[in-house]
Amino acid sequence: MRYSQLLAPTLREAPAEAQVASHVYLIRAGFIRKLAAGVYSLLPLGMRVVQKIERIVREELSRAGAQEVLLPMVHPAELWQESGRWQAYGPELLRIKDRKGAEFAMSPTAEEAIVDLVRRDVKSFRQLPLCLYQIQDKFRDEMRPRAGLMRGREFIMKDAYSFHTDDQDAAREYQNMFDAYSRIFSRCGLEFRAVEADTGAIGGNQSHEFQVLAASGEDAIVACDQCQYAANVEKAELRRPKVTTAAPVRALEEVHTPGVGSIEAVAGFLGEPLDKFVKTLLFVADGECVVALVRGDRDVNEVKLKAALGVTMLELATDRMVTDVTHAPVGFAGAQGLSIPVYADPEVAALAEGITGANKGDHHVRGFNLGRDVPHAKVVDLRTAAEGDPCARCEDGHYRAFRGIEVGHVFFLGTKYSAPMKCTFLDAQGKETVMPMGCYGIGITRIAAAAIEQNHDGDGIVWPMPIAPFQVEIVAAGKEPDVAETSGALYRELTAAGVDVLLDDRDERPGVKFKDADLIGIPVRVTVGKKGMAEGIVEVKRRRGGDMEKVKIADAAARVRALVAEGMSVGGGARA
Amino acid sequence: MRYSQLLAPTLREAPAEAQVASHVYLIRAGFIRKLAAGVYSLLPLGMRVVQKIERIVREELSRAGAQEVLLPMVHPAELWQESGRWQAYGPELLRIKDRKGAEFAMSPTAEEAIVDLVRRDVKSFRQLPLCLYQIQDKFRDEMRPRAGLMRGREFIMKDAYSFHTDDQDAAREYQNMFDAYSRIFSRCGLEFRAVEADTGAIGGNQSHEFQVLAASGEDAIVACDQCQYAANVEKAELRRPKVTTAAPVRALEEVHTPGVGSIEAVAGFLGEPLDKFVKTLLFVADGECVVALVRGDRDVNEVKLKAALGVTMLELATDRMVTDVTHAPVGFAGAQGLSIPVYADPEVAALAEGITGANKGDHHVRGFNLGRDVPHAKVVDLRTAAEGDPCARCEDGHYRAFRGIEVGHVFFLGTKYSAPMKCTFLDAQGKETVMPMGCYGIGITRIAAAAIEQNHDGDGIVWPMPIAPFQVEIVAAGKEPDVAETSGALYRELTAAGVDVLLDDRDERPGVKFKDADLIGIPVRVTVGKKGMAEGIVEVKRRRGGDMEKVKIADAAARVRALVAEGMSVGGGARA
Repeated sequence: MRYSQLLAPTLREAPAEAQVASHVYLIRAGFIRKLAAGVYSLLPLGMRVVQKIERIVREELSRAGAQEVLLPMVHPAELWQESGRWQAYGPELLRIKDRKGAEFAMSPTAEEAIVDLVRRDVKSFRQLPLCLYQIQDKFRDEMRPRAGLMRGREFIMKDAYSFHTDDQDAAREYQNMFDAYSRIFSRCGLEFRAVEADTGAIGGNQSHEFQVLAASGEDAIVACDQCQYAANVEKAELRRPKVTTAAPVRALEEVHTPGVGSIEAVAGFLGEPLDKFVKTLLFVADGECVVALVRGDRDVNEVKLKAALGVTMLELATDRMVTDVTHAPVGFAGAQGLSIPVYADPEVAALAEGITGANKGDHHVRGFNLGRDVPHAKVVDLRTAAEGDPCARCEDGHYRAFRGIEVGHVFFLGTKYSAPMKCTFLDAQGKETVMPMGCYGIGITRIAAAAIEQNHDGDGIVWPMPIAPFQVEIVAAGKEPDVAETSGALYRELTAAGVDVLLDDRDERPGVKFKDADLIGIPVRVTVGKKGMAEGIVEVKRRRGGDMEKVKIADAAARVRALVAEGMSVGGGARA
Repeated sequence: MRYSQLLAPTLREAPAEAQVASHVYLIRAGFIRKLAAGVYSLLPLGMRVVQKIERIVREELSRAGAQEVLLPMVHPAELWQESGRWQAYGPELLRIKDRKGAEFAMSPTAEEAIVDLVRRDVKSFRQLPLCLYQIQDKFRDEMRPRAGLMRGREFIMKDAYSFHTDDQDAAREYQNMFDAYSRIFSRCGLEFRAVEADTGAIGGNQSHEFQVLAASGEDAIVACDQCQYAANVEKAELRRPKVTTAAPVRALEEVHTPGVGSIEAVAGFLGEPLDKFVKTLLFVADGECVVALVRGDRDVNEVKLKAALGVTMLELATDRMVTDVTHAPVGFAGAQGLSIPVYADPEVAALAEGITGANKGDHHVRGFNLGRDVPHAKVVDLRTAAEGDPCARCEDGHYRAFRGIEVGHVFFLGTKYSAPMKCTFLDAQGKETVMPMGCYGIGITRIAAAAIEQNHDGDGIVWPMPIAPFQVEIVAAGKEPDVAETSGALYRELTAAGVDVLLDDRDERPGVKFKDADLIGIPVRVTVGKKGMAEGIVEVKRRRGGDMEKVKIADAAARVRALVAEGMSVGGGARA
């Protein structure tokens, strides 16, 4: 394509709201434009990136035996009521009414619609297994959309759903999709990890996230430095301490701690380290009040607590409820003597004599021992894993911490949707059986953003070759006729050879063209300039790395094609 | 693809609501399924057809210099208020509110969003012309969605928008898109006509519809049998009668016509032919009452009347208004003596002595002469063209009537959107100028339906090769090992050669497979059967035509490839 005919308006400044690199550069380099909060238009460069990603996704899913379909964006409320998500989903689900008053959801995901399709047309074990996918705009009415394509409200997602005769076959497909996802992200040229994850609002029994590693990622993940275990910290298991329950050392002793409610303040007042304290937090879990205990230097991991309780709604208790339950002001709660369920982290059980609130204003207790003082407490893993924690799955490993951007998620759903929606088949014995399911998502537009978070510098984007909007940019640096002629000839030769080339033929100074080229981030740049013409050479430079090679004009096309081939085959790759 | 792994559930019966062939067969052959009224899911076969159409559209638009973008589906109300369409569009525009109460439109078309994009980033004549397109789901909340993909509420549309420095360049692009559209529909293998059309809700100064010819089409079109003129009857011009205004013959004479209000009843009562009568209809046009007159054997063409009046809203006056204006019951109106604007068709002006209502209950008048009795009447073309009418553009031609399905529409918009939304550029002299625009739509999913309306028989669909879900179907007719072996080998050989093949390897009787094959409508069928195996042949048959050829097994692949090549190159074609 000729740059003079391309709509790629570059900007010197991004809007103030753009804080992360991908947002800044996607706007500045003319890939996207904002239409409303969290709602973006893709310009031609952005469209090219998205279509390259989609092509890789289609090829790998087709290779994995999945079939492409396209469901509507507008789904009848009745289906969401059947699954129970009409009530459960919350305000992120955009609900609409048509001219006749019928209610619909703008699809944020399509489990209900696909189950409805399959239950009508698939009746026999002979029609299973089945894996259907679509690539489609989705809408999630995020309270705080941000970071451009990273967390928008309208975005492009690939969602796939599989249907099986039994759990074993669903597990086989889970692995099949896991492998396809690994190939997809490798082929996109991304460095990523597959990590164990919480199943969240989608539900189900098992899931893995595919995380593109980037310092700016919003997800924290840990990975063992010895074995293969890796997980989102929301979910990452922790090795149980060797001493599981400490024996008591001394009796409870009340101490006066006037006006110091926070753990840090009490620790300072008493001159004791934080890890001697027990943090007592009250939550409301599906309407019931419960207590969670972690060591004073730790935080409660709410995802783990929710999973341990088996509830869908969890929130911190109000100050009023804390006072009602503990008969003390907020900041002085202790689990001893409370008659509600108590969940304690193993580190709390391992404390022989802890310090905690006395359930009495301005007082704490020393000598707290979980086994003795809260015998009914359940000991469960409640804290968030961190760098350096011993691995839960192997003997010698320790966790290393990473930041990641979730670009894919595979779920083993079981019968969460197929049971309430009666998606059944007749098995070989003629028995009606509910289909176990899996579901599998990829954030297509988010991949573009994640690729930039992982691949950029101070001048702009550094696209991985397989998803770059163009593979090669030729800069015609100068207005001399031989510059135009040579750059035009090279453009035609490479294009005819199937290379995806952008020719910067604009009437602009070379400096402007180089700045735009760095900003847009095409992997290979060829500069055709006046001086080079005199020497019979062009300059070839990789966007990543940056060594400039002088190449004879006659050899230029071959050299560029070799660089393109190299870039298409070398990518990042899974470490999972 | 192997049929045993394809989700293509065929049905013996379509739902009762399916009345037209495309609706019936798309459902019965397993291409689509209904999710809600006017909202359909595409199954794998449907998806394949749509993707083949999309590919042709992308290739031809790219060839024509258009750039692909993707706008959101959700557009802020503010933009639609700027253009005035938030008020004007009516209930077909689905309006939604997000969680914060902000108003949005589900995009039925994207003039506002694209103008907003262009006015922000395009400032100079150097950046023009520009033609941007997208392929995207659209939503129009039709009151009565019907006929499956023919008139759905959610559907896939290609919409393109062009921006120019002046009208002349916009006219050049109009022709460029007209030519691209002709190539697209030809390449889809459709028989179509480009016809002059009304601009409707989109507005603008000029437009052509691309109509796929089919007896079931909802549009009536006429085309001259001598010259190139063709038009939608809504718009088709009529040749002025030679005698433009007849001289009066006799004075008005009242006749008693007790209880006979309708034209047909009065004609019967008086024993006069319909073409001696003048039909008097009252309309409310943008709030004002007007009278339209056509000959008794004709109907008022409301599109022409609207255009003649230059109004946006037009509806028949209520009975009450008719009585208020004429002082007579409905059925007895005459234009003589009325003090409101009168528009008369030339055929009415040519009547020397007509019969019309007397503005008095149970009475008509004879001897009505427009020039004498309604001297202030404006004579304008008001009636709908019909088969046999003389052509308005040439001397000797007459109209032939066709039915068509509108699959594409090109509009010269002028500044209808760019002026109110201030989409301007600086011209070479530095003067701020509004950009003239064009817009160009193609109904992607409707093409699939129109192709079926034009190409089907009693057994099922007869796909044109270029948009068939598969080019070739191999039917393994029998359970013998050599049938499976030969059909599998042919499948692999053709697939490796780039032919799109469906292999019916299901565990079904040959009769079931043939019935499904006819229903699904793949253009070339190869039957591998037990009897043929003994003779060393397979049977090759075209879905259209139906002559069966016996082909030696060794020659089968070459013969099939020749038929595919033939089908890909021969299509229908424009007659415009």
